Amino acid sequence: MSLPFLTQAHAPLTCEVSAINEFGEHISVSIPAERALTVYVDKRELVTLMTLGAHPELLVLGYLRNQRLVNSVQEIESITVDWDVGSAAVKTRHGIADMDEKTAKRVVTTGCGQGSVFGGLMDEVDQIKLPAAASMTQSQLYALVNIIRLKETTYKSAGSVHACALFDTTGSAPEMLIFVEDVGRHNAIDTIAGWMWIHMAPMLPTACGSLPHEGTAAPADWQSQIRGPCLKGEDAPSQAASLVFYTTGRLTSEMVIKSAQMGVPIVVSRSGITQMGHQVAQSVGLCAIGRATNKRFVCYTSTQRLVLQPGLAA
Amino acid sequence: MSLPFLTQAHAPLTCEVSAINEFGEHISVSIPAERALTVYVDKRELVTLMTLGAHPELLVLGYLRNQRLVNSVQEIESITVDWDVGSAAVKTRHGIADMDEKTAKRVVTTGCGQGSVFGGLMDEVDQIKLPAAASMTQSQLYALVNIIRLKETTYKSAGSVHACALFDTTGSAPEMLIFVEDVGRHNAIDTIAGWMWIHMAPMLPTACGSLPHEGTAAPADWQSQIRGPCLKGEDAPSQAASLVFYTTGRLTSEMVIKSAQMGVPIVVSRSGITQMGHQVAQSVGLCAIGRATNKRFVCYTSTQRLVLQPGLAA
Repeated sequence: MSLPFLTQAHAPLTCEVSAINEFGEHISVSIPAERALTVYVDKRELVTLMTLGAHPELLVLGYLRNQRLVNSVQEIESITVDWDVGSAAVKTRHGIADMDEKTAKRVVTTGCGQGSVFGGLMDEVDQIKLPAAASMTQSQLYALVNIIRLKETTYKSAGSVHACALFDTTGSAPEMLIFVEDVGRHNAIDTIAGWMWIHMAPMLPTACGSLPHEGTAAPADWQSQIRGPCLKGEDAPSQAASLVFYTTGRLTSEMVIKSAQMGVPIVVSRSGITQMGHQVAQSVGLCAIGRATNKRFVCYTSTQRLVLQPGLAA
Repeated sequence: MSLPFLTQAHAPLTCEVSAINEFGEHISVSIPAERALTVYVDKRELVTLMTLGAHPELLVLGYLRNQRLVNSVQEIESITVDWDVGSAAVKTRHGIADMDEKTAKRVVTTGCGQGSVFGGLMDEVDQIKLPAAASMTQSQLYALVNIIRLKETTYKSAGSVHACALFDTTGSAPEMLIFVEDVGRHNAIDTIAGWMWIHMAPMLPTACGSLPHEGTAAPADWQSQIRGPCLKGEDAPSQAASLVFYTTGRLTSEMVIKSAQMGVPIVVSRSGITQMGHQVAQSVGLCAIGRATNKRFVCYTSTQRLVLQPGLAA
């Protein structure tokens, strides 16, 4: 089996518009793109996503994954994005079983309010088993927040986008594996889920201990560097401890669930947490850290996963 | 005909959780509630919304409206919210025609990324006609922003919620008609749409020039104060100029469309605007003002609706 073929569609991420400021001056401002991407699965229309457009193929892949429409990246043969018509054509190897059933029920909506997901996202929470040993030091947290702070971003140039990133904290200095911005934070995390499926396929939950990885898209070193989390079973590899998810958005229930489903045991946010996000994080043993800016933070749950170094806070 | 009966379900909006800060101190922090509200229409499950829970009945009403599932508030007989089971039971007077069809297609998703809406939200944009005379002075804008700044909010006590408000700027000092916070900004604007249907029913698009108002829920003075916008027809009453919508969230396409659909010609945001939000605002002639904090702002579209007073900016 091999990884899906993905196009590499590009489109401008910002555009310039004229505006008027408080002094009555005519100014030019940069604003982020927001474009419609209609997803077709085996020629059948599924959904239209509004996206910045930086990583449309990974977004679609992660969307299919996080919506539980496909169980394995190997089910996808190709994703072809064409910005001229705003379409993403997904070709599966064997079709999607029970697609009608899977898309029929609009079950849980999100902290953004109404981002619906197909199927029972919450239903799977009980099955999630995050690696018990996963931890991060306060020093690593500060380094991670600083990496985000220094990053050149669409946010800095145009505002109005959310960012997500995935970090590997195996070494003392966190390494940013992927950074994604989008007009929607759910799109951003879905894009990271898509990236993980391509680059970390052998270690991911659905591939847990069963699917060999023969694709070409994943850097070879990934397979030795990272051992992924395992949804079922008691002995999740301790190396999964190395993954940390960062988001500029709030830690609502759906963000926490998606992180847990991706097997990432520690989540860091610049914003706060909601009650249900807190409950879900508690129930799956996910370490949720919010209000993370400069040297400040609040660690809400699974606080044992954060190795405190209070001396650094001064 | 009369307005729907709405329960007045209450639930705590915040809760206290223990956490650890950067100094290793155990602290108590307030976080916003996020609860699941499953909406049943005539005993049939429609959707589950994740909400703060401040105005669940108005949220459901506005959701049904903004999703175009009901065309008139008079179609709804009652909305009964029961937080013990997290349900909102909607009873219609005559059922919803073509509900299968209306809910079958997941068409456009939102700036939050994936807030799906039933039916073609964009399809209606071309029909929207906002009152040409609508305007606001820079002084009124500053006063409006200041009212928001001074408001006691869940955001101030617990963070992680978005706020929306509707203002009447008939007088020189803007009057805040309703202020809504929610974990999702789409929920917040939907709640305002629900409020408008109850309190401003006779002037709203779907009731345009035809439906008499005999309900008891709307303050009588509303009917003389505000003349609502009219989706069709050339002569929208100029008094609709008095309505201004405020949101802490970004002006994405869906937020702009929802504002326009509610007939509100001026939108103010603390955040910025996306490209599609900008395009839609331009095409419907909606005045979009972003980055509005203290004395700063950027007026992106329909700038003639903002009466500049640059001297006030100093």
